[in-house]
Amino acid sequence: MSIKTPVQLLESQQSATTELAKFRYGADGRVLQLDHVLVEQPLQIRLSWQVAAKLAYQSQVFSITMRTPGDDKALIIGLMQSEGIIDNYQQLESVLPEVDEHEAKSSSTSVIANQWQVKLVAGVVPDIKSLERFQITYSSCGLCGSTSLKSLEMKNPPRLNQNQHWLSFNTICSMPDIMRAAQAQFVQTGGSHAAALFNELGQLLDIKEDIGRHNALDKLFGASLAQRSLCHSRVSVLVSGRISFEIVQKTVMAGVAVLIAVGAPSALAILAAKRFNLTLIGFTKKSGFNLYHGDWRLLPLEDRL
Amino acid sequence: MSIKTPVQLLESQQSATTELAKFRYGADGRVLQLDHVLVEQPLQIRLSWQVAAKLAYQSQVFSITMRTPGDDKALIIGLMQSEGIIDNYQQLESVLPEVDEHEAKSSSTSVIANQWQVKLVAGVVPDIKSLERFQITYSSCGLCGSTSLKSLEMKNPPRLNQNQHWLSFNTICSMPDIMRAAQAQFVQTGGSHAAALFNELGQLLDIKEDIGRHNALDKLFGASLAQRSLCHSRVSVLVSGRISFEIVQKTVMAGVAVLIAVGAPSALAILAAKRFNLTLIGFTKKSGFNLYHGDWRLLPLEDRL
Repeated sequence: MSIKTPVQLLESQQSATTELAKFRYGADGRVLQLDHVLVEQPLQIRLSWQVAAKLAYQSQVFSITMRTPGDDKALIIGLMQSEGIIDNYQQLESVLPEVDEHEAKSSSTSVIANQWQVKLVAGVVPDIKSLERFQITYSSCGLCGSTSLKSLEMKNPPRLNQNQHWLSFNTICSMPDIMRAAQAQFVQTGGSHAAALFNELGQLLDIKEDIGRHNALDKLFGASLAQRSLCHSRVSVLVSGRISFEIVQKTVMAGVAVLIAVGAPSALAILAAKRFNLTLIGFTKKSGFNLYHGDWRLLPLEDRL
Repeated sequence: MSIKTPVQLLESQQSATTELAKFRYGADGRVLQLDHVLVEQPLQIRLSWQVAAKLAYQSQVFSITMRTPGDDKALIIGLMQSEGIIDNYQQLESVLPEVDEHEAKSSSTSVIANQWQVKLVAGVVPDIKSLERFQITYSSCGLCGSTSLKSLEMKNPPRLNQNQHWLSFNTICSMPDIMRAAQAQFVQTGGSHAAALFNELGQLLDIKEDIGRHNALDKLFGASLAQRSLCHSRVSVLVSGRISFEIVQKTVMAGVAVLIAVGAPSALAILAAKRFNLTLIGFTKKSGFNLYHGDWRLLPLEDRL
């Protein structure tokens, strides 16, 4: 395959990865090589709603986020859920790309749709006041305008299920290797985060990848919402990175009771896990892990002194 | 030191790290331990400006971001620069915490200021239209409303210096170990990202840490702006994570000509580096690295076939 120019690259970004030239520098010199690189593009989501059937639609840009193309519909559905816009899948009238007519005419090949529109079912009205509370936001973490534990409470998160003693030490320790083996984009590019859903036996139910770990989680939960409610399931979610408050927020809003990470949690993430009774586990390896809250969901293990 | 309750934790989050209880699970049982955890808290920035001296101040919430407390002033100055609100330090009238009177009275100990106000020098007026372009934004990457190469061009980035052949292979390969040794918060918590500034000899000039890599970079560049202009210096910045478009944007806006990462770049990051003639290096280890653009800033190395 030939090396692409920047312009060709822009045109060809129809999938999650692309190929680009690089110099590989080593102690004995350098060599020109092709590299698989993860694609990153902006996604704009417009939200439309009707106060009641037959009334006119109102519409507003809800979000612009940088993401790796693919699973865009799931990403959007997940974001609607984690931001408390919808409680269930039935509140969505439609989630569709907005086709730019000029784009459609000027290109013979299909292009990535970077503009999507969400229509809510008549009567499902987003709390615009709370969305508008902080009008200008440039966040570095995705929590613009919704940063506190209080703001999470305001979103009416579902109550997490209280099943006890169903998850084993060995099952938890086995998850990172299982997820890693399924990270197709990471194997190619080394640049993607992953989020994976496991059942109580430690079997992989689903995995999503993205340049942003928040997006990977939204894709995972968005895809689940279309299929089933997670609130009554004995499932765990594993994330490849660290656990910020926002990762806890998305997990709680999705109704998943166990959050496991390869990396470290923040103090606020631990605080939120205690508040919403989420089992929170970090630094997970084959040999063990740290548990910060909710040990009663695990099968009992002998205490050492 | 005693184990803290959640309420004590909230009250004691006056520094970048805190202590919390955890269970350490291993194959032979579990044990209760104290853990150092990275603090994460929201920071609100209010922007105030005067169209001309003696006219009334206008004011707007500019941003809310989750960050690790510490170097807040530098973080804010860096954000003002990377978002194109200011070109130089002299355009800032003041950057001060907004003290909540109720808070100040109710607490005998000093609390972290999570609300800051930036006043611009009279006549420095932010482009509110462009800031307001996308009013509601929940980004997962920090690029809300400013996502394209075009939007970066609109911010009038400084022209990067064109000095040739000043950075050596060995200097680049030595940087990750030097930075790692200086990552105090990471050593304690395993949860922080880092960004570090190096001179052309590979000497560490400054390092900042934060739960968000974007924040670490803003802190680094904000601290530099107060001291010196980077545009004419032969400096490189090293980041601990991956390179998204936003990381390139912040580096270009700060006038730094060489961006080096331990992790992978995205396709859009590479495209932006080519557009703004930034030297972009990823996957940096002791033994070598990948160079994606701008090899002419490096001392020549023999080509292998």
